[in-house]
Formats: sequence, structure tokens, C-alpha cells
Amino acid sequence: MAKTEKDASKPKARLPKGLRDIGADELRQTQAMLEKIRAVYERYGFEPLETPAFEYTDALGKFLPDQDRPNAGVFSFQDVVPEAREGKDEQWLSLRYDLTAPLARYVAENYQDLPKPFRRYAVGSVYRNEKPGPGRFRQFTQFDADTVGAESVAADAEMCMLAADTMEALGFERGQYVIKVNNRKILDGLRDAVGLADVQHNARWLVVMRALDKFDRLGREGVGQLLGKGRKDESGDFTPGADLDEAATKRLLQMLTLRQQADIQEGVDGPRFNPVINTGRNVEDLVPRRLTSTISSAITNYVEGTQHRDIRELTALDVGLREIEEISDLIAAAGFDDGRIRFDPSVVRGLEYYTGPVFEAELLIEAKDEKGNPVRFGSVGGGGRYDDLVARFTGQRVPATGFSIGVSRLQVALNLIGRAPKPTLGPVVVTVMDKDQIAAYQKLVQTLREAGIRAELYLGNPKKFGRQLEYADKRGAPIAVIQGTTERDAGEVILKDLIEGARAAAAIKDNREWKETRPAQVSVKVEQLVAAVRDILARHS
Amino acid sequence: MAKTEKDASKPKARLPKGLRDIGADELRQTQAMLEKIRAVYERYGFEPLETPAFEYTDALGKFLPDQDRPNAGVFSFQDVVPEAREGKDEQWLSLRYDLTAPLARYVAENYQDLPKPFRRYAVGSVYRNEKPGPGRFRQFTQFDADTVGAESVAADAEMCMLAADTMEALGFERGQYVIKVNNRKILDGLRDAVGLADVQHNARWLVVMRALDKFDRLGREGVGQLLGKGRKDESGDFTPGADLDEAATKRLLQMLTLRQQADIQEGVDGPRFNPVINTGRNVEDLVPRRLTSTISSAITNYVEGTQHRDIRELTALDVGLREIEEISDLIAAAGFDDGRIRFDPSVVRGLEYYTGPVFEAELLIEAKDEKGNPVRFGSVGGGGRYDDLVARFTGQRVPATGFSIGVSRLQVALNLIGRAPKPTLGPVVVTVMDKDQIAAYQKLVQTLREAGIRAELYLGNPKKFGRQLEYADKRGAPIAVIQGTTERDAGEVILKDLIEGARAAAAIKDNREWKETRPAQVSVKVEQLVAAVRDILARHS
Repeated sequence: MAKTEKDASKPKARLPKGLRDIGADELRQTQAMLEKIRAVYERYGFEPLETPAFEYTDALGKFLPDQDRPNAGVFSFQDVVPEAREGKDEQWLSLRYDLTAPLARYVAENYQDLPKPFRRYAVGSVYRNEKPGPGRFRQFTQFDADTVGAESVAADAEMCMLAADTMEALGFERGQYVIKVNNRKILDGLRDAVGLADVQHNARWLVVMRALDKFDRLGREGVGQLLGKGRKDESGDFTPGADLDEAATKRLLQMLTLRQQADIQEGVDGPRFNPVINTGRNVEDLVPRRLTSTISSAITNYVEGTQHRDIRELTALDVGLREIEEISDLIAAAGFDDGRIRFDPSVVRGLEYYTGPVFEAELLIEAKDEKGNPVRFGSVGGGGRYDDLVARFTGQRVPATGFSIGVSRLQVALNLIGRAPKPTLGPVVVTVMDKDQIAAYQKLVQTLREAGIRAELYLGNPKKFGRQLEYADKRGAPIAVIQGTTERDAGEVILKDLIEGARAAAAIKDNREWKETRPAQVSVKVEQLVAAVRDILARHS
Repeated sequence: MAKTEKDASKPKARLPKGLRDIGADELRQTQAMLEKIRAVYERYGFEPLETPAFEYTDALGKFLPDQDRPNAGVFSFQDVVPEAREGKDEQWLSLRYDLTAPLARYVAENYQDLPKPFRRYAVGSVYRNEKPGPGRFRQFTQFDADTVGAESVAADAEMCMLAADTMEALGFERGQYVIKVNNRKILDGLRDAVGLADVQHNARWLVVMRALDKFDRLGREGVGQLLGKGRKDESGDFTPGADLDEAATKRLLQMLTLRQQADIQEGVDGPRFNPVINTGRNVEDLVPRRLTSTISSAITNYVEGTQHRDIRELTALDVGLREIEEISDLIAAAGFDDGRIRFDPSVVRGLEYYTGPVFEAELLIEAKDEKGNPVRFGSVGGGGRYDDLVARFTGQRVPATGFSIGVSRLQVALNLIGRAPKPTLGPVVVTVMDKDQIAAYQKLVQTLREAGIRAELYLGNPKKFGRQLEYADKRGAPIAVIQGTTERDAGEVILKDLIEGARAAAAIKDNREWKETRPAQVSVKVEQLVAAVRDILARHS
């Protein structure tokens, strides 16, 4: 790297805020994970679809999960190409913030040609113009499955099973995760009960749902504040609340904690981290009957414990619960009735557009980060029914339900529990002893590659041989291939087993012993190169 | 789909101009292609890296291949989040237009920690804010390999071999493609010769290179116009030229056609579509000696045929040709010397930043599109050496070379020659005869899925059974599973082989015969479901 000039006006090489580069080990892991998820989604009959990274802003609409800042949250730009007479288009475009809004656009645009129901999966980056934070990036990967055009809750039940099967395909064991199910219709009952049923209260009700959705993170007190006057967070930021009175707030919090109450009733006072752990009863007893009866009695308690008994509230509750029961039956028939999928009224999902069952995949494992601090994973995916999203365009209601996985969070979790795929070995590195023999070394490399073995020629300055071995080491190379004049004259190459060598080096006392024994190093005939390399690789795989 | 409202103010569901949705069959093909490319790149020792979709505009710089409109060509936006106190950043951001500029940023930012040379591959979408046209999209996929920190032309030679191996891994046969190699240093000689050596002529020289780069498409006449006063295209758009005099224009065109002259000298008057086809001589004779001697004599002709004999021109030519010879030797040693990789002075590559060898992967196959018109594929990938790109940030020269594949064009080509992977079968569709038995049908589905078989429950309205079979058909389902009361009571299911059924239907004369024979339909015990489905699937794979 020769210095050629210095100039203060040069741009600084830096990543934009909230974005990140992803290196080889992590990417290969991600790749392996995506393949596993894809296999499950395919097995469930979903078909891949790819939509572009950006859409017309008006087509995306405003369905951001955390819409505290209207008109923000997305990256938007205008498509102005002044010189291009055709293709000129001054409408606003936005990077997609999820994969659901583009799906709604796609379905509305292609409805006539699609098989109905339409099952599609999609994987790709989504973009959020939000305040970045630790582990909170502005570009991340989602992996979604959606069924469009299916009214039946069987489609919702399937989403829950898909979620459970995906978690297990990724390496999570039963008991390390739970798929929580709720129904927005139950919340609709509550909306009536707290007097926000009228459309004029739409915005306020949205604030309520977003508050409820934060129960996991903020607990009873924080959510209580967000339902009331508002809440100031640790950084001093103030979030205005829904301005409900005390009775309404209490009522909502009560519903939110039904699951916990039910668990407590049954003698399980689970930690807040994990309100839905197994009760230790016979698995057969839990679902669907247990789900239904537990919740029924909890609902009964709830209704009896409140002064109001609004008939509309009870009707909505009833419809919502009947759907939950149906889901429960389907889950049982398919053999998922062992507590993997559970009803939990604290699941809200902050998105305005949900209209029926909602789901959340939550990790129950406790793990420690690099500093030994306990890490709470919480939600790693979710979704639900959104029957009105396509109607935004067409005016015609198209029932739909879907599930979305946050790939990065799952990957962090898999690593912390030691279930992530191991990094692959580096390539075999063919070193350069004689600079005028590069063509001959290149031939060795090609021989290995043709045999399907990952291999490369050292392409740096070959002057210092030690540098080449350092390079091989840094690349995680399992083998270095060496050929000096002596070996070439004898038609041989030296294979240095770098993995075994590192082990041996740790065990050997001094340099002399090292030089005398030369561990982990063999000479083979050039014709034996492929076979000998395969032998060593087999030992380390 | 019930009509709920009509509203003229609804957004129209439409794709932004120049973008497209990609359906299941094409996506699965792409996926299979990407895996094949990835396998070659990995075998060559490259490591994956992913950078974000957008970068600071100043970090990307302006290296667009077709920079006819300064300040255009990219999608740019500002990161303004008014309410976010932290993370606020009013600098301009741009969607990446290639994968090389972000790599330069990454290397400059992380230079100390990287193994050197640094070999990375990257695959992803890139975005061009250009006039869309048929087959010309504003978002498309590139798959790049680059070696950073390697001065040696061995790194360039490797890129050519990588390109050739990739083409063959994808299914192209030898003779269906060629990797053309040139050296920018040869062009530098020409630059001197036509009197544009001084830095003040940088912009004009760039216009010259862009003109030369269009030789493939515009031929001698069109390029001649672009080197002179300018050119008006079919649509009436006028592109200003480099304003060279006639002698200089003639000289450049002469160099450009050296390869063709050499081929003609040797008795091969190839069609313009394919100026570099095999000469029919012994393969051994062709490269490297043939390459060198052919070109030497062509160069001699060229030099003797011109009035000027500028010593600087000859020196630059000499350096450039020596590098080409070195590449030629390395290619021969690795067994690629059968005409797959050829020297061709008409390869320019329009990018300003190339400093040494440049490559282009070109398809030689002739194919017809759906309308029977002959299709010329031309370039499907390319690259070259760019030793100054990292220095933009650091002021320190870091040698680098790379190769980039245009995935979509290759995919179109593979389809036209019938080498693309076949579409996969749809899922087994379990139909719904009795609505109250959905849980039982769901169980059948789950049994199939647990056996690894792609399967799904019909989730639409089950009232009309015919609709369900139409659906299965539209999905490309190989089998429909049917269970009515009779079958359920007998513990059986009916398997309808839809592929065989379609064949039989074509052969059977009337409805009565159909009903009597019921071809391609079997009843099996429920316990035999998986085995029987596997039998049918095996017959059709």
C-alpha cells in the first residue's frame, strides 16, 4: 500500500448510522438458517415471491409497528430523472418497511391471475428510518409466509404450526419456545368496554394497542402509564398516553394478565420472563381442553370482577374465543397440543391492520451475553389476520393471514445457546516459494478445485514466506501446500496440516524439538495431492 | 371477496416504473443459479460479505458505467428524522448502484483487520435510477468476486478462470461462451497516440472509452460518430461525441478491430455477432503462443499502418501486452488454454476506474425469443483491475481486481437454450369434502409434511368441490387427496394422480368412459398414505 497523496477533502470511509456490514461466518450461518426456514415454508405449500425494495409511498401506506412519529419511520425519495423524457415520475417512493404491505399491493394488482387461496413466502431486507440503538438496525431481514384469500381460521392455525415447525427446524427444542395466540376480536370487546368503540376514537385506540403491546418490555406499571397520561423513559423521552381513566386502565391491565392469573390459579407462579412455561401436568391435559377451560374460567373471573357487563363486549369476547377454540382443535388434530402453541391475551401486536387471530413466537430460553449478563429474547416473530389490507386498494375485502420471522434475532439466540451452524473451514492455501513458478502453483490450485476442494493461490507479495503462513492462518486454512526446488525436482509437494500443527505447537516445548520432529507435515507425490488433501480434510470435518 | 366500499381516493395498486415482481418458478431458478455460482466462488477461496443497500452518497462516488447524466443514475435521499435527537443525520444517502463501490468503502474502513489479499464475494440487488426499457430494470441482481491487495496479474488470470468455471457450472458448454480479456494499459497507449494524454482531457477520454465500449452494440459506424461529433439514436436522442478528428477516430477504430483483423488474417471471417469463434486449428496451438503471435503481428500491422510512431504509445502497448502474456501463461498452466479465454482489444468496459486488465464474459449462442426473433446476448458479466478505488478514501493505493455477473441476463439465456432448472412440482393438496372434518384433513396434511412431503389443506371455501380441483391444477399439484364419508368409514383416502389424470383425460373420448374407468385414481388405507404418495411422486420426478 504505497502512499500516493494526502487530501483532507477525501470522503471518509464510514457506514451510515444504524447499518452494518455482515462478515463471512455470520453470513454463512444466516444462509444455512434461511435454507432451513425455506424448507419448512415450502413443505407447507407456500410459493416464493419477490417484490422490489421500494414501492410508491402511497401504495405502502402507513402501517408501521411503532408509528410514534407520523410521516417518519420510512426512507422516502423522489424519482426525478430530469433528462429522461420517458420514465419520468415525480411521485414519492419509499423503501419497504415490511414484506406485508408490498404483498397487499401485489395481490391487489394481480388478483385475477392468482390461485385462491394464494400462499406465498418472501425473504428479504426491510428498512426502518428509526433511531438506531444497540442491536437495533435500520436494515434487517424478514422471512414471511402469508395466505391470502382464506377466510377459515384453519389458515391461522396453520400459521401457528408453521411457526412451531420453523423454530424446531432451526434447532430450538420443545420448551425453548412458545407460539402465543390471541384474537383481536377479544380486544374489540374491550374497546367497547372502555368506551372507545366509535370511529372517532380510532387514533386513541391505536395508542392503547401500542401500549398493551409493550407489556413484555415495560410491565404493568409502564403500560399503565401509557394507558393513562403518558410515560417518560430512562433517556427522558416522553411518550404521550391514551388518557384513559383509572377504571378503564385497570380493566385493560386485568385482561392483559389473564394468562398469568390462569397460571397462578393452577399453582404456577412463573417468573415474568416466562409467564407461559409448562405446568408440569400431563401434556395431554393442557390443550385444547385446558386452554379453553382455563381461559374460560379466567374470562368468567374477569367478567364477574368488573362492574360493567356490556353485552357487546361479551359478544365480541365470545366470537374471539370461539375462533381460539377452533384453532385449538385444529392444532390438537395435527399433534401440536403439547404446549408449544398457547393462548395468551397479552399478545397484542402493535399493528393497526390486524383483524382476527394474532400470533407471537417467543423464546423461553435464558442465556447470557458475552459479559455474562442474562439476555431476554422475547419475541422473534409474529403475525396475524389482516382482512382489510387489500381493500385499501380495491375496496373489496380479501381475507389474509401471515407470519413473519425476524432472522437476525433468531440467529443471535441460536449462537447464545450453541445451536448455530459451525463456521466452515478456510480454503487450502497453495504458497509461493519461487516467484517464477507461479503458473506451476496455479496448476496445483486448479487440480484441487477441479476435485471440488476449496483452494487458492497466495496472491500477495511472496517475498516473506512467514507472511504466507500467517495469511493461511488468518483465513482459517486447514492446509498449506508448499513446493520448493527440492520438492519440485522430486515431483512432490509438502502438505502442512495447520489444524493439527496448531495443536502440536501447543504441546511442544521448544523450537529445536519442533524443527526435529516437524509435526503435522507430510511430503506426497504431486499425483497424490488430491487424495492426501482429502485425507487431512476428512480428519478435521 | 365482498364489495365493501368504493372510493376514488384509494391508492392504485401499481409497481413503480422499471421495477418488477418475480414469481415462484423464476425465483426458484434464480436460487438454484445463485447456489451454483456461490459454489464456484467458494471453491476459489472467496468469502461472503454483505454490505447495506445504501451508503453515504459521497462514499459511493460516481463510477456509474453509463454516466451520461451527471448527478443522476442513483436513487438518493436524506436521512432526516426530526424527532430523533440522536441518530439524526442530514447527509445524503444513495442506494448502491453496484457492489464494488461499497467494497471499496468496506476495505478502506476495515483495512487493518483484513487478511491480505482479501478475497470476498457478494450477491445482492443494485439500483439504477435510469430510463427503464424492455428487459432493462432499475433493480437487478449482481454476483461479484473481488481480490483486494493483490498486485500480481495472477489475480486477474484467476478472475478469468473463475468466470469460465462459473459459466460451465451454470450449464453453458465450451464454445457457447468466451471470456474476453484486454488491458487498459493498451488503451493508455492509444490515449497518448490521439493526443489526449494530459489530465485536462480526462473527461473527453472518458467519452472516448464509453464510445469504444459500445462497439458491440453500435458497430463501427455508431462508435465512429460517438468518437466524432456525436450520434442521434433511433428514438431521436442525441449523444454528444468526443470531437476527435478523422485520423484519431480511424486509429481507435483500427485498434478496436485488431481481433477481427487477426481472425480474418487467419482465414476466419467470423460474423460480427461472434468475432472470436474458434479457428479450427489444434487447440494446443491457440494459446498462449497463438494469442501472443497473432496479436503481435496484428500490433505490428497496426503500428506500421499508422503515420505516428509515438514511443510512449509503444511503451504502454508493450507493458499492456506483457501482462496479457503473463495472464495467457497462467491460463495455459491451469488448463484453460482451449479458446475459452481470449485476448480481444475491443473490450473496454465503460467504467472510469479500471487501471489494468479488463474482462468480459460473452455468450456466443444464437437463440430465438418467443416470437422467433434471433436474440443476441452479448455481455453477461465483466470486470477488471481497479487499483485506485480504495485510495479515494485513504490516499493509499490498494491494488484490486474483480468480476461481476449479471444474474438475470444469464437466466434469460439459460432458459432460451433450455438449460434452466425445471419448475418444481406443486404441493399435494388435501381437499375438503366435509366442512366439519377440517381437523381430520389437517391431520392428513401434517402426516405428509412430517414425512417431508410438500402438502397443504385447501383453505378456500370448500362448497364447490370442482373449485378445489381447479385450485390443485393451478398450483401444479401432483396429487389431490380426497376423503368423503365412505372413505372415512373405511379408513381410506382416495389419491388422484393429477399428472397422469391429465394425460389420460387427453386420451379418453367421452365423459361416460371417464366415469367408468376413473383413471389415475386409487384408494389406499390411511396408514398407507405416505407410502402411496411417495410412489406417485417417484413416478413423476
